Amino acid sequence: MNKKMIFYIIGKILQVEGILLLLPVIVSLIYQEQVTRIYGVIALLLLVLGSLISRSAPRDKDFFIKEGLFIVGISWFLMAVFGALPLVFSGEIPHFVDAFFEIVSGFTTTGATVLSDIDQLSHASLFWRSFTHWVGGMGILVFTVAFIPLTSGRTMHILKAEMPGPIVGKLVSKAQVTAQILYILYGALTLIEVLLLLVGGMPLFDSLLTTFSTAGTGGFTMSNAGIIGYHSPYIEGVLTVFMIIFGINFNLIYLAALGRGWLVLKNEELRWYLGIIATSTVLLTVNIRRLYGSMGEAFRYAVFQVASIITTTGFATTDYDQWPMFAQNVLLLLMFVGASAGSTGGGIKVSRIVMVAKSGLKEIKRMLHPHGVVTVDFEGATVTARTLNNIHSYLLLYALVFCGALLVVSLENLDFHTTFSAVATTINNVGPGFNGVGPMKNFGDLTALSKYTLAFTMLAGRLEIFPVLLLFSKYFWQE
Amino acid sequence: MNKKMIFYIIGKILQVEGILLLLPVIVSLIYQEQVTRIYGVIALLLLVLGSLISRSAPRDKDFFIKEGLFIVGISWFLMAVFGALPLVFSGEIPHFVDAFFEIVSGFTTTGATVLSDIDQLSHASLFWRSFTHWVGGMGILVFTVAFIPLTSGRTMHILKAEMPGPIVGKLVSKAQVTAQILYILYGALTLIEVLLLLVGGMPLFDSLLTTFSTAGTGGFTMSNAGIIGYHSPYIEGVLTVFMIIFGINFNLIYLAALGRGWLVLKNEELRWYLGIIATSTVLLTVNIRRLYGSMGEAFRYAVFQVASIITTTGFATTDYDQWPMFAQNVLLLLMFVGASAGSTGGGIKVSRIVMVAKSGLKEIKRMLHPHGVVTVDFEGATVTARTLNNIHSYLLLYALVFCGALLVVSLENLDFHTTFSAVATTINNVGPGFNGVGPMKNFGDLTALSKYTLAFTMLAGRLEIFPVLLLFSKYFWQE
Repeated sequence: MNKKMIFYIIGKILQVEGILLLLPVIVSLIYQEQVTRIYGVIALLLLVLGSLISRSAPRDKDFFIKEGLFIVGISWFLMAVFGALPLVFSGEIPHFVDAFFEIVSGFTTTGATVLSDIDQLSHASLFWRSFTHWVGGMGILVFTVAFIPLTSGRTMHILKAEMPGPIVGKLVSKAQVTAQILYILYGALTLIEVLLLLVGGMPLFDSLLTTFSTAGTGGFTMSNAGIIGYHSPYIEGVLTVFMIIFGINFNLIYLAALGRGWLVLKNEELRWYLGIIATSTVLLTVNIRRLYGSMGEAFRYAVFQVASIITTTGFATTDYDQWPMFAQNVLLLLMFVGASAGSTGGGIKVSRIVMVAKSGLKEIKRMLHPHGVVTVDFEGATVTARTLNNIHSYLLLYALVFCGALLVVSLENLDFHTTFSAVATTINNVGPGFNGVGPMKNFGDLTALSKYTLAFTMLAGRLEIFPVLLLFSKYFWQE
Repeated sequence: MNKKMIFYIIGKILQVEGILLLLPVIVSLIYQEQVTRIYGVIALLLLVLGSLISRSAPRDKDFFIKEGLFIVGISWFLMAVFGALPLVFSGEIPHFVDAFFEIVSGFTTTGATVLSDIDQLSHASLFWRSFTHWVGGMGILVFTVAFIPLTSGRTMHILKAEMPGPIVGKLVSKAQVTAQILYILYGALTLIEVLLLLVGGMPLFDSLLTTFSTAGTGGFTMSNAGIIGYHSPYIEGVLTVFMIIFGINFNLIYLAALGRGWLVLKNEELRWYLGIIATSTVLLTVNIRRLYGSMGEAFRYAVFQVASIITTTGFATTDYDQWPMFAQNVLLLLMFVGASAGSTGGGIKVSRIVMVAKSGLKEIKRMLHPHGVVTVDFEGATVTARTLNNIHSYLLLYALVFCGALLVVSLENLDFHTTFSAVATTINNVGPGFNGVGPMKNFGDLTALSKYTLAFTMLAGRLEIFPVLLLFSKYFWQE
């Protein structure tokens, strides 16, 4: 392990968080709020602490997958711990466990909240909370790599560990340039959405925060009324389209930006992703039509909710907890499917689901022809045994984390729907679940044990299990 | 496809069912019941139909995995259809869908019932219903192979398709002898349990039927009161021990019978199986102690329920639906774990769980050493990539069937706990679930669509997915 290098990068990341915390300072100055000093002091603390830790640049700049996974796991944890402090010291979320849960939920783009009264937050804290979605969506380390020259090479290991999906492609050969392109695209799409929301009559502050939430596929809203409060089919339409866009692999968005749209349309994951959205929307529209009087109104709520759940954003324009069990279970399954690889969305990812489904169905063919060679194709190429094995292991570890968290949260002695969906919605980074943690409820009443456990599942889900479990693995510490 | 051979074997299997139906005829004669004629006519019908179909023995006696899987899938379906007829024509379960559900539940050793009043059944029907557990536990085709010389060789393909678990070992080189040994052991254990229950004061008829239920890890009881009605810790103790025994791989029981007990104790799956039972029992005893006043009483109910659920028998000595959510979810997870490979129990099987868990955890090591060779060991040998791949595919198809059934049963618009556990308890061949399908409830009120769907999941679970999905696979019908 290149310990010096690890400390150096962690120091840089803390500095980055210090800089990011200056944004809520500016917001609080604009709105003349009392929390200015608290955000300012913590920003300063992080800048000093960060520069102390990364005082000397290490000579040996090499590092490998191991270091990459470790840095990602530990950085996200530290970012959440420090990011929670302003909320604690301002007294807005007085207990650390609640503030930690809230900020983990922010960075992991989950959007589950412990707050029953969002309206009482200061503008600075509302901003910071939603802004963590934006940063966490594309990745804290991708951000750091994009703007701070860290090492001469091998930074791709960090990007790989932080970016979701079974196969992470580089856009260009250099990791830093890749990260910069990603953030430029991310910024451009963010800007477009803000403008479109402004056009719809949403105030600037609201447009900005709602866009952070959409872009990161997070789901925090900035008022108790949430998206419902705007009563605007136009705004719902814009959000639906942008949620779906932010659930697409950014490699494809890059290709589209380069004007190579035909390559985008040929993409297999995208087709499945859009196909699942279309199918689910039809099923839901038919299933809930009686609740909304007309097919048109039912479609409006169905398509928004499908887009919100499959992209793991978690916005709600209606209390879907009142929908029939069929519609609820379609949404529940969509939570697990999740968005595309290489997007800001969570869940298992469409490409993984498609690859294992193909592999599973091919097994029947394999049984019939025990001596033949049966391969699985995805995106026009044969999926390697290594990739399949990695996906299988990911799914298994995902299931283990899920079952472990389910048992711990069961100690709350709440009903099964609440317990199960609390774990499902956090591990898949969606936000709201069903029943006791439904879209009109929150996670505030859970015990500290459950909140820490669900914070863990959020991190495990966002970082796709491995970097988080690595910290508890004997293989890692033995060496 | 060797179609003649397939017809021949299917004919033989129908004849076997005809012979088996003579047993309830005898029972109804003893108890002088009116259903004698109905069971007699259907037995005769099957004997005639069976001998017509298998009139001419095919010259080409060869067949392969494909034929094996097909025969297993179609035979189980036909056995259930014909096995349901006496219940329909006697008027005891007048609707075919209910009788079909009941007998599928019997043969697959699930033990889920549509009956709200079991006491009103005739002795013949009570006997037939429980006897299907006994036959289905070890396997209809294993039974047929044991007692009827079918082909010169390759019968192992049938046994493989019907016997649960990732790796099916032959006891001896000849399939027929293997099948005979299995049934001798099965019969001997059955006899011992009957005697022990008689010693405990249980009437002969009850002892016989309860033993059928235990041996097949089925779970049908013969009265509305069920096992609770005997108020006997001795009987509960005998059942606990025998449920655990019938959840052990019969290869190990064969070794033990040969006096090679030391080989049995070295078995890895057995250790995990007993370890999971012990751990779960401790967790449950602690969790439910307040409900039963003392640790001793809590242990009594905990160990019985753990043994009943992990072996997928489904007996209940208490309404575990009233237990805390933690205890309920431990039981729910045990439903999925299931018993050992090569036992009469259902579920995913301990060996599969252990192998994929090891493989998943090793992935962390594999990521740290991308160029090293990392293997997974089970039972002292390296697990081949082929075996792991087969398990992964099994789990994926299992998950697909689960999700599909969940959506269909959701159309009932019952609560989530009922919906989810109805699918979980049927696909794992347990019997009772939670809430609306809890241990003191039944499946009678579901729609026909749900009953057929759950009958499908029971068959898919018992035959471990492949033979059932094969019937719907394009790969099978294309050729």
